[in-house]
Amino acid sequence: MRLSQYFLPLLKENPSEAQIVSHRFMLRSGMIRQQSAGLYTWLPLGQRVLSKVENIVADELNKAGCIRVIMPTLQPADLWKESGRYDAYGKEMLRITDRHERDLLYSPTCEEMIVDNFRSFVRSYKSLPINMYQINWKFRDEIRPRFGVMRGREFFMKDGYSFHADIEDAKREYNKMYDVYHKIFARLGLTAIAVNADSGPIGGAVSHEFQVIAETGESALYYDAAFDDIRAGKLAMSSEEMRKLYAAADELHIPEKCPVPKERLREARGIEVGQIFLLGRKYTDAMNVDVTGADGQLQRVEMGTYGIGVSRLLGAIIEASHDDNGIIWPESVAPFDIGLINLRVGDIKCDAICESLYNSLSEQGKEVLYDDTDERAGGKFASMDLIGLPWQIVVGPKGAEKGVVELKNRKTSEKQEFTVDDCLKILLGA
Amino acid sequence: MRLSQYFLPLLKENPSEAQIVSHRFMLRSGMIRQQSAGLYTWLPLGQRVLSKVENIVADELNKAGCIRVIMPTLQPADLWKESGRYDAYGKEMLRITDRHERDLLYSPTCEEMIVDNFRSFVRSYKSLPINMYQINWKFRDEIRPRFGVMRGREFFMKDGYSFHADIEDAKREYNKMYDVYHKIFARLGLTAIAVNADSGPIGGAVSHEFQVIAETGESALYYDAAFDDIRAGKLAMSSEEMRKLYAAADELHIPEKCPVPKERLREARGIEVGQIFLLGRKYTDAMNVDVTGADGQLQRVEMGTYGIGVSRLLGAIIEASHDDNGIIWPESVAPFDIGLINLRVGDIKCDAICESLYNSLSEQGKEVLYDDTDERAGGKFASMDLIGLPWQIVVGPKGAEKGVVELKNRKTSEKQEFTVDDCLKILLGA
Repeated sequence: MRLSQYFLPLLKENPSEAQIVSHRFMLRSGMIRQQSAGLYTWLPLGQRVLSKVENIVADELNKAGCIRVIMPTLQPADLWKESGRYDAYGKEMLRITDRHERDLLYSPTCEEMIVDNFRSFVRSYKSLPINMYQINWKFRDEIRPRFGVMRGREFFMKDGYSFHADIEDAKREYNKMYDVYHKIFARLGLTAIAVNADSGPIGGAVSHEFQVIAETGESALYYDAAFDDIRAGKLAMSSEEMRKLYAAADELHIPEKCPVPKERLREARGIEVGQIFLLGRKYTDAMNVDVTGADGQLQRVEMGTYGIGVSRLLGAIIEASHDDNGIIWPESVAPFDIGLINLRVGDIKCDAICESLYNSLSEQGKEVLYDDTDERAGGKFASMDLIGLPWQIVVGPKGAEKGVVELKNRKTSEKQEFTVDDCLKILLGA
Repeated sequence: MRLSQYFLPLLKENPSEAQIVSHRFMLRSGMIRQQSAGLYTWLPLGQRVLSKVENIVADELNKAGCIRVIMPTLQPADLWKESGRYDAYGKEMLRITDRHERDLLYSPTCEEMIVDNFRSFVRSYKSLPINMYQINWKFRDEIRPRFGVMRGREFFMKDGYSFHADIEDAKREYNKMYDVYHKIFARLGLTAIAVNADSGPIGGAVSHEFQVIAETGESALYYDAAFDDIRAGKLAMSSEEMRKLYAAADELHIPEKCPVPKERLREARGIEVGQIFLLGRKYTDAMNVDVTGADGQLQRVEMGTYGIGVSRLLGAIIEASHDDNGIIWPESVAPFDIGLINLRVGDIKCDAICESLYNSLSEQGKEVLYDDTDERAGGKFASMDLIGLPWQIVVGPKGAEKGVVELKNRKTSEKQEFTVDDCLKILLGA
């Protein structure tokens, strides 16, 4: 993509409404724009990252045998009356009346609707287990939306639901999703700590929240020091072993009952990026969902539910990966792989090298943002650091004379000169 | 995907509420399920096709230099009051009040919001032209939703918007999008006729609707017989030439003013799958959108807008491509490439051949739906025909003894026996 033909509205000043670093950098790098409290347009750079995060989440779920669906954002209130949550949910649920005076709501989560789909089609235990998910917009009418996409009102969420013939199988799936979630967050460049959590309005007996440690997090975390070693790469542990380590959030941590000795207990703030629930029969009881078992008798279905805040993850990634100059995107979700900076647009040699690099890299499947504008060098460097692409290639007139370019790693800030061919080899991994 | 682990709730009977063939087959093949009038869950098979159509639309737009964004489904009413459409739009616009008594609406289209984004960032003619699009859910509170996803209330739409320094450039882009739309529909296996159309509540001086001919279409089309030759592949024509052919819908066709002699005039019904509008200044006048021109003076911005009904396209494709037994998917959007039918699950040879084909084809990037259930042969054949995958491989005990399988082309119904290796070669194009 040539920057001169792109839409990348960068802000030079820090927006006053942004209290946390991810919100600030998302606004400044032209990723999002607020339309109203908690409602955002995802500008081109933001859309690209959101889509990459979505694809990674979907890919890992597909590999794990989960099946994708899409449910409508607006739902009939009847289903929610049946489960009892229509009255219980409170003002965070946006209630809507259509032209025929029928009650609708903007889905904040989808247990009722997936259960309704399940019960209308599935009759036998032989069809179980089933794990279905969607990635779609949700709405929670937060009284005080804040922190950008971290606590918006309209947000992009992955919500998954599994159905089982017995609670043991539901537990097996719960543990599997625990592992899948760790894989997903790892691919996004994040180390999440799974803490015991309250299941809240979703319900269920057992729940884990996946927390990314960040000073600006809204949750207070208490955990075994081993997690810090895992996060720091000093310790490798299977997720089965990890599940046995102590970790709890907020009021679920009761100091006098904590099994971890003081010297091994750590406290930190965390951003919740996902949560899994061993639901049991909460919804299948309320909505009368049975299948025929192996003995020919009707039996109640057991459930699990699994959420990931896809749009919120972008904020969490930035909180976990930035410096004073801007975002440092992990390669897996960077909006472009490479930023190509032409320091003297119009100079025959600079232009020729840039065009050649742009074409060669693009042909090999690399996504390149080519700064072909007539902005000054300082501005170009600052913009490229701000938007945080993993690699920058700087092409200036002096180097171009000699046939060399500068390659900069955004994360390490390491810069080195290479011939054009060597630069290509490094970036193409050849 | 193994059918035993998939969620494919087929209906054997024709649902009484489905009046048209696409609605009937989408329900029967387990693609969608109605949750309430005009609100659908996209079941796994439907989600796969919807996602493929989305990707083709996005791919062609990206190649044409259009830039993808996402705007929120819920929007503040203020913007719509500014353009004058809040009052003008009528009851099809779903109006919502949030917990703070602020007026929101569920976006039926997004001219106001994209204009608001544009004017907050773009200052100079040098940034023009810009063409941005999104693919997201929209809502129109139809008084009588019908025909399944053809006229639903919540629907998936591609809406694009372009901004220009002068009307000539807007016309150039309009013509370019006219061409891009033909490319998109061709990749989806459709021949669309672009007819002169009324610009309706969107506005603008010039508009074309892209219509797919189908008996069940809601529009009356009148067009030059040459279009039938183009659709039948008897005539090749550039889209520039096509634009000069006569085609009009509904009341825009005035018999006494029609330039086509009677014997060359054709009448048919059509399904509208897209519409493009040369908007001019309708919104930039209402919302005061200027940029600085080359002469340093402020000048009003010109616009175009371009829609495609992504979810509706699935209905249109089915209307255009089916037989009595079910859907016939074009390869580009088929939910799976190949259906693999094991006629005797549990037979060592049948199982071995199926596993081998399933693994080999999957490894080569083919998407295979493997019917490994213990359903009877007749049921398996009927289901596979119904869901309309382009190819079926039938593995039965007699053939397995000899190492041969039957390959069936869904479109031509042609069946032929091949050795397993030859079958692989044909499907992998080797």
